[in-house]
Formats: sequence, structure tokens, C-alpha cells
Amino acid sequence: MSETTLRVSKIRDGTVIDHITGGHALEVLKILGITDHVDGVVTVGMNVPSKTLGLKDMVKIEGRELKSEEVDKIALLAPHASINIIRDYEVIDKQLVRLPKIIKETVKCANPACISNSKEPVKSTFYVENEEPLRLRCHYCGYIMEKQDIPNQF
Amino acid sequence: MSETTLRVSKIRDGTVIDHITGGHALEVLKILGITDHVDGVVTVGMNVPSKTLGLKDMVKIEGRELKSEEVDKIALLAPHASINIIRDYEVIDKQLVRLPKIIKETVKCANPACISNSKEPVKSTFYVENEEPLRLRCHYCGYIMEKQDIPNQF
Repeated sequence: MSETTLRVSKIRDGTVIDHITGGHALEVLKILGITDHVDGVVTVGMNVPSKTLGLKDMVKIEGRELKSEEVDKIALLAPHASINIIRDYEVIDKQLVRLPKIIKETVKCANPACISNSKEPVKSTFYVENEEPLRLRCHYCGYIMEKQDIPNQF
Repeated sequence: MSETTLRVSKIRDGTVIDHITGGHALEVLKILGITDHVDGVVTVGMNVPSKTLGLKDMVKIEGRELKSEEVDKIALLAPHASINIIRDYEVIDKQLVRLPKIIKETVKCANPACISNSKEPVKSTFYVENEEPLRLRCHYCGYIMEKQDIPNQF
């Protein structure tokens, strides 16, 4: 059993979000609505040594599988994350999160004057110019969004 | 090895905060300043079944021992918590957190008109009327503080 496995151990049924960029586990919890009152066991490992990432975070959630919009939001903050669905201690599905080229509605433009923040029926739309560090360009106003503009929106 | 031990496993050196009232682990992290960028491995278990508490949370912090003012703050939110200092995988010190009868300076009065919130040289002072649910009475204005008044102060 590896050191990593020892730190935050196996769950029976649920989701393991692994290879979260180090330091982002708490933001992932926020995306998933895991604040004070949560049902089911949740375990979190932060700054766990990782061969590929240097330091990684991971989140294990017993008894819950993620919705696709939750996976999309995780991709914004942790583009290397993998999502493992566990049933009866076995990984039955594994997917890498991935950023689409265009992101619609998931995040709001940080430029308050942008038309997507007005009362007009306009859905926020961004082009992913770079994944890490994250760089999103607003379709409407050209504003460049970076990672630090995102977490407080969730 | 018990189910609990399996979920969040042993650390080599550092602090284990155990028997945190279920749902309060993230507030404990906040008290300890563990937000996004933290040095060293931190593991968190939430809603772990406990014989005495029903559900408990726990936090394990590698390579760090707590200051007494941090322990005092944890006592406000998790009056049943135990703090274990670990060296070389062994518990070398174990202490129960405990609320003093009078709390000075640790928290601010939630009544904005209280003299302890003015520019006067007055230190906040509360009498602990009840531990759980928490009830603190302000020495100056008599305002009753409850648990929900506390977390946003840290």
C-alpha cells in the first residue's frame, strides 16, 4: 500500500477526486456544496506528495456521484483532476476532467460592465485561451479572467 | 485497525484534532489558517461514525503543533475535541480542549453598539453560560452570543 493510499484510505461507494492541483481541495469542496452540514463521510487530503504534480490534493466522498456541471467546475480549478466512481471498493469508472474550448454559463464575467452581467438575456461565454495558468477571454467584452477570479463565484 | 483509523490514517509528526463535533472540521481549518495555501500534509475526515458523538470530524496536520490560543478557539466550536500531539507515530501528549468560564479577547461581541467594539480600550469579555449549544454573555452589554455568531470572526 503506497504512502498516499495510507493517508486517505479506501471508500466503499462514492467518488474519489484525485490529482487536484495542490491547495485547491477546499475550493473543490465549495464547488460541491460541502460546507458545514453535509451528509455522508467526506475525507480530504491536502499537499500529498504526487509523482506527476509535485503536491496534490484529493477528496473522497462516500455515497455520492458527481453531476456533469460539477465536473465542469472542478476542471476550471483543477485541470489535472481525475474522477473515479467507486462501487463496492472497486473503481468502476474513471474520467479525466477536461476543459472545453468554450465555457458557457458556468462562470460569470468579472467585468461588472460586461453585457453578460446586465439584465439582457445574454449567457456568459468564454474562450479558454490557456488551461494552466487559467486564462479565459470573455466573448462579449474581451475581459481576461484568471483563476483567482473564479472561486468566489461558487 | 478500526474503520475510523482506516479512513484517515496515521501521521508521523504533528497534531491530530479528534472528536470535533460533526460538521465543524472546515471551521477548525479556518481557525488554524488552513485555507488554500498551506505547508505540509493535512487530512480531514468529516461525518465519521463515533461511539460518543454519533458523527465526528477530525483533522490531522503533519509537522505542526498548535498554539494555546488556537486550542481556545477550537474549544468554542468543538467543545468535545481532543488534541493529540504525535511524534514518530506515537501520541506523546493528549489534551481535551475545554472552555474557560470567562473568555477574554478571543471573540468579538456581535452587538455593534457594544462598548467593546468602540475605540475605547476595552477588551471583549464573555461569561460562558452554556457549552453546547454555546451561549456566551457579554460582560459589557449583556448580549448573548451563540455558535453561529462565531465562525465568521476567524
